[in-house]
Amino acid sequence: MIQGHQSWIFQSKPIILGCSAVGGPFEAKGALAGEFDLLHEDIWLGQDSFEKAEKKLLEEACNLAIKNSKVKKDDINFFLSGDLMNQITSSSFSARSLKIPYLGIFGACSSSMEGLALASFIVDSGGANYVLCGTSSHNAASEKQFRYPTEYGGQKPPTSQWTVTGAGAAVIGKGYDRPKVTSATIGKVMDMGISDPFNMGAAMAPAAVDTIEAHFRDLHRDPSYYDVIATGDLGRIGHNIAKKMLKDDGFEFPQGVFTDCGILIYKKDQPVFSGGSGCACSATVTYGHFLKEMKRKKIKKMLIVATGALMSPMSYQQKESIPCVAHGVSIEA
Amino acid sequence: MIQGHQSWIFQSKPIILGCSAVGGPFEAKGALAGEFDLLHEDIWLGQDSFEKAEKKLLEEACNLAIKNSKVKKDDINFFLSGDLMNQITSSSFSARSLKIPYLGIFGACSSSMEGLALASFIVDSGGANYVLCGTSSHNAASEKQFRYPTEYGGQKPPTSQWTVTGAGAAVIGKGYDRPKVTSATIGKVMDMGISDPFNMGAAMAPAAVDTIEAHFRDLHRDPSYYDVIATGDLGRIGHNIAKKMLKDDGFEFPQGVFTDCGILIYKKDQPVFSGGSGCACSATVTYGHFLKEMKRKKIKKMLIVATGALMSPMSYQQKESIPCVAHGVSIEA
Repeated sequence: MIQGHQSWIFQSKPIILGCSAVGGPFEAKGALAGEFDLLHEDIWLGQDSFEKAEKKLLEEACNLAIKNSKVKKDDINFFLSGDLMNQITSSSFSARSLKIPYLGIFGACSSSMEGLALASFIVDSGGANYVLCGTSSHNAASEKQFRYPTEYGGQKPPTSQWTVTGAGAAVIGKGYDRPKVTSATIGKVMDMGISDPFNMGAAMAPAAVDTIEAHFRDLHRDPSYYDVIATGDLGRIGHNIAKKMLKDDGFEFPQGVFTDCGILIYKKDQPVFSGGSGCACSATVTYGHFLKEMKRKKIKKMLIVATGALMSPMSYQQKESIPCVAHGVSIEA
Repeated sequence: MIQGHQSWIFQSKPIILGCSAVGGPFEAKGALAGEFDLLHEDIWLGQDSFEKAEKKLLEEACNLAIKNSKVKKDDINFFLSGDLMNQITSSSFSARSLKIPYLGIFGACSSSMEGLALASFIVDSGGANYVLCGTSSHNAASEKQFRYPTEYGGQKPPTSQWTVTGAGAAVIGKGYDRPKVTSATIGKVMDMGISDPFNMGAAMAPAAVDTIEAHFRDLHRDPSYYDVIATGDLGRIGHNIAKKMLKDDGFEFPQGVFTDCGILIYKKDQPVFSGGSGCACSATVTYGHFLKEMKRKKIKKMLIVATGALMSPMSYQQKESIPCVAHGVSIEA
């Protein structure tokens, strides 16, 4: 039910029955390689296009999440998914093979938490027994669509980020003894006038800050409530901007609480510029790493704030700045 | 709450507090011109790109729906919107100017009813006091993105359809004395192997049939329950295929009940080939025409089944067939 202006409290505490994280070769060399359910050595996944490889990543993540949840696929009422490809083809083509009634969503890289928020809301409200949500991204498919094909070997500025090749999915239902989704905050679109597609972190930081502050306001919470508050893919530059903006507004975080999935996923010596990005960044770090940390009893309460840059190559060509959004979901042990 | 496998019954009967239909110059010459709230003579709407013109159509539709609903914009909890542009920029850029917490959706031309279904579900479940949902399409922007720029003057086969230039929006809340949204059925992705992007009607017909049959099954209803069952944008060819498929499965409709927004919107002498299409087709015909018919007491119960073709130009180039989906929403006086 609604809490404050833009948040939901899930009173029946829907749980994550099963989830999954699938990654590519660059993620297999990353800092969280051990946390993935499945890693691929081949960036093509044996497919004849990067787009088909991304679809395969998402299908694998969905099927693994279903397997881990021990729910029968036919019992799942709805599949919620979104991704970065034009017309979210990775999601829609996965919906075709999954054969589960399908709601397509789009929030760019915030799609991971948009899907988890809506899935949890639907289950909590009795609108489904089981909902599958997922998202994916593929480095080479994204670069080709949004910037330049990777084969060109174009140079990038240090503010740029590295799109994660991977997919994450989760099956939400009711029950106990699993991580509970307890609340969600739906973000407003924020745009501070940044128009540089090689500096998404800075563009998205104000959206993350706005959603985090709305979450605290709506739920009467402060940073001390959480063990982890993780932004989706601000990277080092965007995350530091967000931290400073929050500090200026009076929010300080205990050491180690405020982090970013895009900073955590790769090793420091990997050439990822400001950090990881892409729909799969927050999805794989949440479903792969954080939920395992919860199982290992290292985290009890976390807030994942997935951030999305909502521009298109066309809007950039037409001199528009970059509108951004962030959706926050809290998960508790 | 869930009813059957893939439908929702709205027990608190969320109502359409206000809605709107905005159209372009071709719609102003159409069969339903008198049903629009606002019509533009200029296909550019004074903007310097077709994409910006589409965004303006959606912003206008949203602001008109809010005005007609008499709800204060700041009281609206969420804005749900999707469109055909890559990265649904019309919706996301409208969300930027509206400043309402935003959930982006994508179901191609089914986005109209995906948005209305989710908005009604959220209000019905106490997840919001007010939700705004909207969608838009622009003929020249769509042709440029999906096929060829209209300036080329390319020829088209008779199976092709004419994308509606327009936008529709609705504000959903609780109350009485207005049309009630009573149920919704979320569709599965169907793909019968059609790969011709100039024959969307035929590609989408099986999705419409699957959703209509799921709706009857889940809600224990048959065609006699409704005064109008309207598909979104199958056009003449797709609609006849759907009619035949439904007849083969034992569903016959009383005279005049089964229709299609894409057939209704234009006059017979307009050169629209098989009929209208685009996200705005079902949105403007529903929010402009059908709801006015309900006010005029000519319709009491209707089921709108918006259909969407989920391919992209890239998936077509990669020799994929066209996956399609349809979402049905019932509205009662």
